[in-house]
Amino acid sequence: MVRVTVPVPGRAYEVTIGPGILRSAQEHLPELPGASTAFVISDRTVSDLHLAPLATAIEARGLASVLLLVPEGEEAKSLRGYETLLRQLAGREAHRDDAILALGGGAVGDLAGFVASTYMRGIPFVQIPTTLTAQVDAAIGGKSAVNLPEGKNLVGTFAQPLAVLADLDVLATLDDRAYRSGLAEVAKYALTLDDELLALLESDPAPVVARDVVVMESVIARCVEAKARIVAEDERDTSARLVLNYGHTLGHALERIDAFRGRTHGEAITLGMVFAAALSEARGLADGLSTRTDRLLRSLGLGSAEPLPPVQEVLRCLRLDKKYRRGMRFVLLEGVGRPIVVDDVSDDEVSSVLREMGAPA
Amino acid sequence: MVRVTVPVPGRAYEVTIGPGILRSAQEHLPELPGASTAFVISDRTVSDLHLAPLATAIEARGLASVLLLVPEGEEAKSLRGYETLLRQLAGREAHRDDAILALGGGAVGDLAGFVASTYMRGIPFVQIPTTLTAQVDAAIGGKSAVNLPEGKNLVGTFAQPLAVLADLDVLATLDDRAYRSGLAEVAKYALTLDDELLALLESDPAPVVARDVVVMESVIARCVEAKARIVAEDERDTSARLVLNYGHTLGHALERIDAFRGRTHGEAITLGMVFAAALSEARGLADGLSTRTDRLLRSLGLGSAEPLPPVQEVLRCLRLDKKYRRGMRFVLLEGVGRPIVVDDVSDDEVSSVLREMGAPA
Repeated sequence: MVRVTVPVPGRAYEVTIGPGILRSAQEHLPELPGASTAFVISDRTVSDLHLAPLATAIEARGLASVLLLVPEGEEAKSLRGYETLLRQLAGREAHRDDAILALGGGAVGDLAGFVASTYMRGIPFVQIPTTLTAQVDAAIGGKSAVNLPEGKNLVGTFAQPLAVLADLDVLATLDDRAYRSGLAEVAKYALTLDDELLALLESDPAPVVARDVVVMESVIARCVEAKARIVAEDERDTSARLVLNYGHTLGHALERIDAFRGRTHGEAITLGMVFAAALSEARGLADGLSTRTDRLLRSLGLGSAEPLPPVQEVLRCLRLDKKYRRGMRFVLLEGVGRPIVVDDVSDDEVSSVLREMGAPA
Repeated sequence: MVRVTVPVPGRAYEVTIGPGILRSAQEHLPELPGASTAFVISDRTVSDLHLAPLATAIEARGLASVLLLVPEGEEAKSLRGYETLLRQLAGREAHRDDAILALGGGAVGDLAGFVASTYMRGIPFVQIPTTLTAQVDAAIGGKSAVNLPEGKNLVGTFAQPLAVLADLDVLATLDDRAYRSGLAEVAKYALTLDDELLALLESDPAPVVARDVVVMESVIARCVEAKARIVAEDERDTSARLVLNYGHTLGHALERIDAFRGRTHGEAITLGMVFAAALSEARGLADGLSTRTDRLLRSLGLGSAEPLPPVQEVLRCLRLDKKYRRGMRFVLLEGVGRPIVVDDVSDDEVSSVLREMGAPA
């Protein structure tokens, strides 16, 4: 078991990573003074798999455990879903000291975090991520969100949880595509922020791909440490946190073009990292980065058979991005572990790299 | 013109109080780097009275001014109203640097603050309170809120504005009942936190009742200073801020019994202050407090012809209060300017004081 502190000023909290965390959650849940109920927000699939040990642990702490079910996936993150949860809490007379536990992937965590940070102007909140993506990324950093018909994550808060419990046993329950989607975020941290993690992945990717619990404990802890450093420096996403978007600018554009039904998030940002490496090289920033990136991603089983959409469609979508100012903004690398943000990328540069990647005009 | 700083750690901001503030708002609005549009959230009545000079000032700052209308009064503060505003912002492609200006009373400020603190996880926000109640109380302190069918202010955030602009000229446009409702909050600050303000009100209430701009500038500034001190000490409402609830525990119960259609907030907390003074005396805390309170309130034109509801109904409602633990919790006074919080008040004590105040059984 490993504990990593997220040192956000005034609101530091711990991420506990290890096998069997759910079964022993009574030891890992934070102090909840005055609480009488823990409201577990989860979806049907995840709660069928993982609720039982958590509910037992909650009751062992002398609290009532109440499950509030939400729809599966991104669909949960609507204002209607938000309202339903708020009214369920109010209807059950949840009070300011009661806690919300988010048991699920990124969507459940985003929605539950928004509920917890706004019900009675904020009640105690614990993240219990059950996907690799959520364990290394979404559950860390205190961003909550719901979607509007006009766009993804347009509404939310910055609100840190009291604790994050990442049980490694859940990794075995993920389907291959979901697990690989998480590995794409792992690759992002390795390429942008952690040379040693990169060396570890390059020297022996097999146990990572095989979900070896001992190796994954240290891999996840390294990712969480990298994100924690960045988040503590820039809680409200105005500067340092931008580097966490490595591969995500193009990734989000591809997800939007697919209307979130095609590629997984991991497949989209895999292409985004291939793109960012090629653009970094084209700008003369990092020789050999593309080759190294391709080798890493391939060794982790990452990639997508799905062809790229036409260049013009991608450009149109990138231009809508709220980060668009002088030119397009991308996170690039001046070498592994050395991210920089550029915001003067022209349409021509983007087209040329996309065409090299095989996109039709 | 007076400026009062609200010294919330890390997010200090200024409250500018004076005549003609709206007409010269281009000088008083905070820096809004990167903004292209100021979205003014207001209702029909207030915007008809006060929008024109503000819109001119916004345009003088080189920003587009867009009015987003909400229903009048407490009705605006629904999740539906919240969603409508979020989608209007997204539909007009409001970005992270654009600002929201709340032009109105407490309800508009509560709703606009919740929108501003959650759209894109928070965009710049300015409070422009147009009622006395909002100028001395609701607009200061960074509480935002919307209502659920299950209860008032059950959803919201703690989110400080960038600035508060309180134009004294708006006081002349208030109807008598609304103005007096604000004076009840003024009396609360005088009794609980500011002896000098109390002395000023006691020695010469006439210019306060007559809305004299010179006198009211200093009265409002004193109230804002008192609240600012408390808010800076306890931004998230866990301890010191409780004293701001003087007169409000009974006041809120009376409002709930009336379902927010009977007494004004000021009328309800006027009764709450009469009650709190009598209870303080009954507990031997503050001799003569009732007489002094009654005289102050009467001199400000405060009071209500409306009879009190039956004691049993009030008790039932007080027991539902989320602050109810060992006994009932009330803010009392150990003398003017010396508030204390007690949380062991019995049903019998409450009944006896209510009966003295003329409530039927």
